[in-house]
Parts: sequence; structure tokens; C-alpha cells
Amino acid sequence: MDEVHSQPHRTAATRDRPQAEAAIRDAATRCFAEFGYEGATIRRIAQMAEVNPSLVIQYFGSKAELFETVVSIQDAIMEAFDGSADLGRNVAEVFIPMYEGTRPWGRAALGLYRSAPTQAAAAELLRAAISEKSIRTFAAGLDDEDAEMRSGAISAIIQGVIYGRHLVGIAPLTTPDLDHLIYYCSAAISGILDADPYRASEA
Amino acid sequence: MDEVHSQPHRTAATRDRPQAEAAIRDAATRCFAEFGYEGATIRRIAQMAEVNPSLVIQYFGSKAELFETVVSIQDAIMEAFDGSADLGRNVAEVFIPMYEGTRPWGRAALGLYRSAPTQAAAAELLRAAISEKSIRTFAAGLDDEDAEMRSGAISAIIQGVIYGRHLVGIAPLTTPDLDHLIYYCSAAISGILDADPYRASEA
Repeated sequence: MDEVHSQPHRTAATRDRPQAEAAIRDAATRCFAEFGYEGATIRRIAQMAEVNPSLVIQYFGSKAELFETVVSIQDAIMEAFDGSADLGRNVAEVFIPMYEGTRPWGRAALGLYRSAPTQAAAAELLRAAISEKSIRTFAAGLDDEDAEMRSGAISAIIQGVIYGRHLVGIAPLTTPDLDHLIYYCSAAISGILDADPYRASEA
Repeated sequence: MDEVHSQPHRTAATRDRPQAEAAIRDAATRCFAEFGYEGATIRRIAQMAEVNPSLVIQYFGSKAELFETVVSIQDAIMEAFDGSADLGRNVAEVFIPMYEGTRPWGRAALGLYRSAPTQAAAAELLRAAISEKSIRTFAAGLDDEDAEMRSGAISAIIQGVIYGRHLVGIAPLTTPDLDHLIYYCSAAISGILDADPYRASEA
């Protein structure tokens, strides 16, 4: 179907690859938002995008990879590095509000976080997304020999806010004043970024 | 049975209250360690302590309160305030290693953390233990108008390490070099403790 271009009345069969990919991403975003990660099947996403399910796999590899594309944590990391305040503050301002329901995939992401402690498949996806993608991408942006552990510790702060605020509801992390929480998370992240590199002999 | 004291051959029926309480605490510690929070029933704990189950309730109120007594987070907080390094470092050194399997109730505590995102009863217990006890006790030790939110943010770091390191297994939080992780958690906690009090207007 890649050969067919510029049809006046485009259907799934006549769209070229960029258009089909965009339709799949859009359908996946709505599907993850409506049905959560588990409920958003490849079949359902394909149906909503009006493409063959095999095309979803061909273009995106797997549901997990499609989810990562939709969530685009990589873009958020770039946004933090490009932000106007100091990096600690930028990270908190980009990542803490991300699960407040403003992003369509927020519910699906929280569903994954909720399932991961007890479901092996969700844990594996989360491990892949956080360890192998987010933390590595962030660490690559830090010019520091200890960048990976710094990034891991920063990630722990985000995970802790997700756990306490969204998964379990632990006050005062549940505060309606999100800026108040962001303020201290910024301070924590800056503390990590400003710390001297760790030397095992000093421990 | 409180009236009977100082019998030469002590059995459950002849022990005085401090002894019975100690026996229940000891049995509960072993029971939580062996069977986890759910599996450690009042009946099982009472049997192990050689007391009537009603006595467990009479002395400790509920399984939840007995668990909090056994875990004694309050003591750990006091330990952090009394520690020899700065407070941020003390908190990390007391709380991060706490779930490494060195404490007999560690497995039961991790079981609660694991269940809380999907089980209402576990969530309620964790909320009560963290929000109403740990965070308040810690905040009371801080001489700051914004102590509660600072304590909450510090708690988020501990929760994030538990989530990433123990519940899901997210590298590099899974590092075998625990001191490395403690080092950056100290820096994060100190960042929170050293931040100026939050002013909503500055946000």
C-alpha cells in the first residue's frame, strides 16, 4: 500500500506510511486513555485506526513499543534539558505534573505502575521503559561519570511521587497544591545533581 | 490473668502483662517474617505466643497496630535524629537499608507495599502508618513551618526506592552497592531539608 499516494478520498488502504503511522499513534493514544494498557489491544487500536493489525506490529514492533512512542518520555527529557530554569526544577516541572490527567495516556501509565508490583509483564515493560530508555537517555544528557546512578536516584523521586500520590494516596503527597510538591522535589533533584561524584572509598 | 504474678513455672495463663506483651511481639515478629502481613493471622500469632487471641486484641488493638509496634518506625526516626552525621545522611542510612532483609519484618513490610496499589486494606494500613505516624513524627522533629510537606517529600524518596529497587526491580536502583544509592538519597534528602520554606506566591 506504500505505492498508492495522493488519492483524493483516502481510506486506510490508500494512506501512505506516515499517515498510517499517525493514525495508529492517534488511535493508540485514545485507546490507552480509554481502556488502559491491558485493555488497549493491538486489534482494538488497529480497528480504531482503520488499518490491519499486522501493520501496527510492522510499524511499531509491539504494543509496548507503541506505548513508549505514544508516551514519548524521550521528548519530555529533552524538554527538561531545554527548560528555562535550572535542570532540577525543569525535571520536576516536566515529570511531576505528567500523571495528573492532563496527558491522554496518563491513566494507562498509572495502570502500568499499579500493576507492575504484582504482574510480571507490566514489571518487565516498566523496567524496559525506565531503566533502558528514560534513565539512560537522561544520563546521556548529564556530563558526569556517575550519571547513571544520579539519574536512577532522580527517577526514584518520580517513582515515589507516583506511588505515594497516585497509587496509594499518602498525605501530604496528595496535596492539591502541586507546586508545593514540585518545589521540594526540585530541591531533592538539585541535591542529587549538585552532589560530588560518589567514591566507594568514602562510604 | 493480670492478678497472677511470679509463678515459678510460667505459662501463658500465669504471665503478667509485660511478659505476655513481649511474647506477643516476639511471636508477631516471627509470624510476619514467615507468613507475610496477610498470612500472619491474630490466631496464628496468639498460638505462637501461647496466649488467647482476645489478649492480642486487648493489648495491641488490631493486627495493624501490632504490626506498627513490631516495625517500630518511630524508633527508626528517633535513631535518625540522634545519628552522628547530618540529618539527611542519617535518614538515608536508617531507612534505605531497612528493607534489605536485615530486619525480620522486612518481608512483611514489602508485602504491604506490594499489595497497597491494588488492595484497599493494605493501602489503608500503609496510609495510616506513613501519613499519620511516620511523616507526622518526623515533621514534629523538624523545627520548620513547612515540616509536613518536607517530610512527605522525603518519604517519597524512600517510597521510590522501595518501589523501584524492591517491588519492580528497576536498574540502577537494584545496585548491589547500597552505599552508592544511599549517597545520592542523602543528597536528595539534604536538598529538601536545606530548601527555603515554600511560598505559594513564588511558584
